[in-house]
Amino acid sequence: MFSRHITAIVGVSSFCLGIWMDRKYRELNTLHKIPGFKIFDAVYADGIVTTNQELIVNNEQRISQIMKYGFPSLDNVRSYKNFVLSYDQRNRIPHWVLEHLTPESVQYNPNVDRASCDFYEDNSFHEFFRATNSDYKNSGFDRGHLAAAGNHKSSQELIKQTFVLSNIAPQVGKGFNRSAWNNLEKYVRKKAKYNKNTYICSGPLFLPKKGDDGKLWIKYQVIGDHHVAVPTHFFKIIVSESTESKFHLECYIMPNQVIPDDIPLKDFQMPLEVIERASGLQFFKRLTLDKFNKLN
Amino acid sequence: MFSRHITAIVGVSSFCLGIWMDRKYRELNTLHKIPGFKIFDAVYADGIVTTNQELIVNNEQRISQIMKYGFPSLDNVRSYKNFVLSYDQRNRIPHWVLEHLTPESVQYNPNVDRASCDFYEDNSFHEFFRATNSDYKNSGFDRGHLAAAGNHKSSQELIKQTFVLSNIAPQVGKGFNRSAWNNLEKYVRKKAKYNKNTYICSGPLFLPKKGDDGKLWIKYQVIGDHHVAVPTHFFKIIVSESTESKFHLECYIMPNQVIPDDIPLKDFQMPLEVIERASGLQFFKRLTLDKFNKLN
Repeated sequence: MFSRHITAIVGVSSFCLGIWMDRKYRELNTLHKIPGFKIFDAVYADGIVTTNQELIVNNEQRISQIMKYGFPSLDNVRSYKNFVLSYDQRNRIPHWVLEHLTPESVQYNPNVDRASCDFYEDNSFHEFFRATNSDYKNSGFDRGHLAAAGNHKSSQELIKQTFVLSNIAPQVGKGFNRSAWNNLEKYVRKKAKYNKNTYICSGPLFLPKKGDDGKLWIKYQVIGDHHVAVPTHFFKIIVSESTESKFHLECYIMPNQVIPDDIPLKDFQMPLEVIERASGLQFFKRLTLDKFNKLN
Repeated sequence: MFSRHITAIVGVSSFCLGIWMDRKYRELNTLHKIPGFKIFDAVYADGIVTTNQELIVNNEQRISQIMKYGFPSLDNVRSYKNFVLSYDQRNRIPHWVLEHLTPESVQYNPNVDRASCDFYEDNSFHEFFRATNSDYKNSGFDRGHLAAAGNHKSSQELIKQTFVLSNIAPQVGKGFNRSAWNNLEKYVRKKAKYNKNTYICSGPLFLPKKGDDGKLWIKYQVIGDHHVAVPTHFFKIIVSESTESKFHLECYIMPNQVIPDDIPLKDFQMPLEVIERASGLQFFKRLTLDKFNKLN
């Protein structure tokens, strides 16, 4: 009788243990199981995390931290150590890239050498959809960072990750990537230095223009064998959390063209809604609007 | 000693049973668990399935049947009784729509009245991204079905679901939607009548054209307040499984313009790869190519 009880107890416990262990295992792997949805691909592809379980867990905590206020969308998400992105397989550029910065993370490590970083293909995408360096070659466009290289200068490994081509989109070089867009990136770093947490979401836009026929048209160039799309505009959304846990939101849209140096940054400010409607995305959904003490 | 063996066996079996039952349960629910990924939204939104558990399970079985050979992508997936779609929130049209037809499902029920069906908004999407009837009004474009109304005439409820605006894209009416595209849809139904199973994936394309400057440009109109994109082309991929379980693949690309009536259907056939590269999607991935006894 007693041994039957024991058997029953062991049975029930093992049943529950089976569920628990499986769930625990699956929690780490759920996103892998969905066909095509491999959130940690990039991490594996990069050869950083292969057998070290501790590193995997740390990285998941980091992803939760970066994505604390919600995913703008779930299409082809890839996570890196310091940023998370969603890749647009049709346009071979990101849908969005999300970074989390702190005063510590933007500190410059003098051992970091940006010049030694090379742009590299994201092998976690099928070759049909993968942007390559040769797509950009002789195109006349810069390989423009969405997660800025300059935001991740605390270690060589971190800056190197920003050079993956799934974090890159064609940008007008002189007068944009090296001027107005760069100034916006510098402004972000300044904000990051003086706030507890700064979250930045950057991405491309394809905005319509009225044609001579009075109709609205979206028109953009594609470059290289893989037809990498050249966005008409870029957006950047900055959420900063002060040491008093007050939130501040700023949104920018810049045209992907030569921008005169004397136009102040604030002239590119836009309501969040404009970016949401144009991109088809929703940003920082878990951060309710009443948390913001100042809105642009 | 013996009872210890029994206990151990019960323990191990229960452990495995626990895993198996939990997995079985989770297989049905995995897609729900991802934040923002509500695969069955539309079913709920439509008011068809609310409290009836049996209907939910049946519907899940139906989704597995429709999607048997893989999801082309996982961006904003919605399931209906007879088709599954992925919605492009930026362009306010589907990325792809997948149907599964059988000789029975394409049988015409004389009680079905297409004329009484009205196009309706998909309330499962945020109003920013939702195409509306007023977007199409006076645009000069038809509200073109991706899952064809004519494929779902076995019941009023099924045909009605094809009129949801997330299954619709702007199509040139006279000379395309009512001619060449319609002929392709009729051809699909004929195939469905004479095969055990027919799977059809339809969607929009935005193909580049060489400009006077020698560069490649993608250019398309957007209509209405929500800037609904007018695709330059449409694709249709047909996988049919004969009664002998042999598979046959046919792929078509048609320009969204007036097409002369005398151009035969086969002139629009294209290799699958062309559609995959242009759409950023991969189709019927679970159906290995060696299963096909005939490829176009």
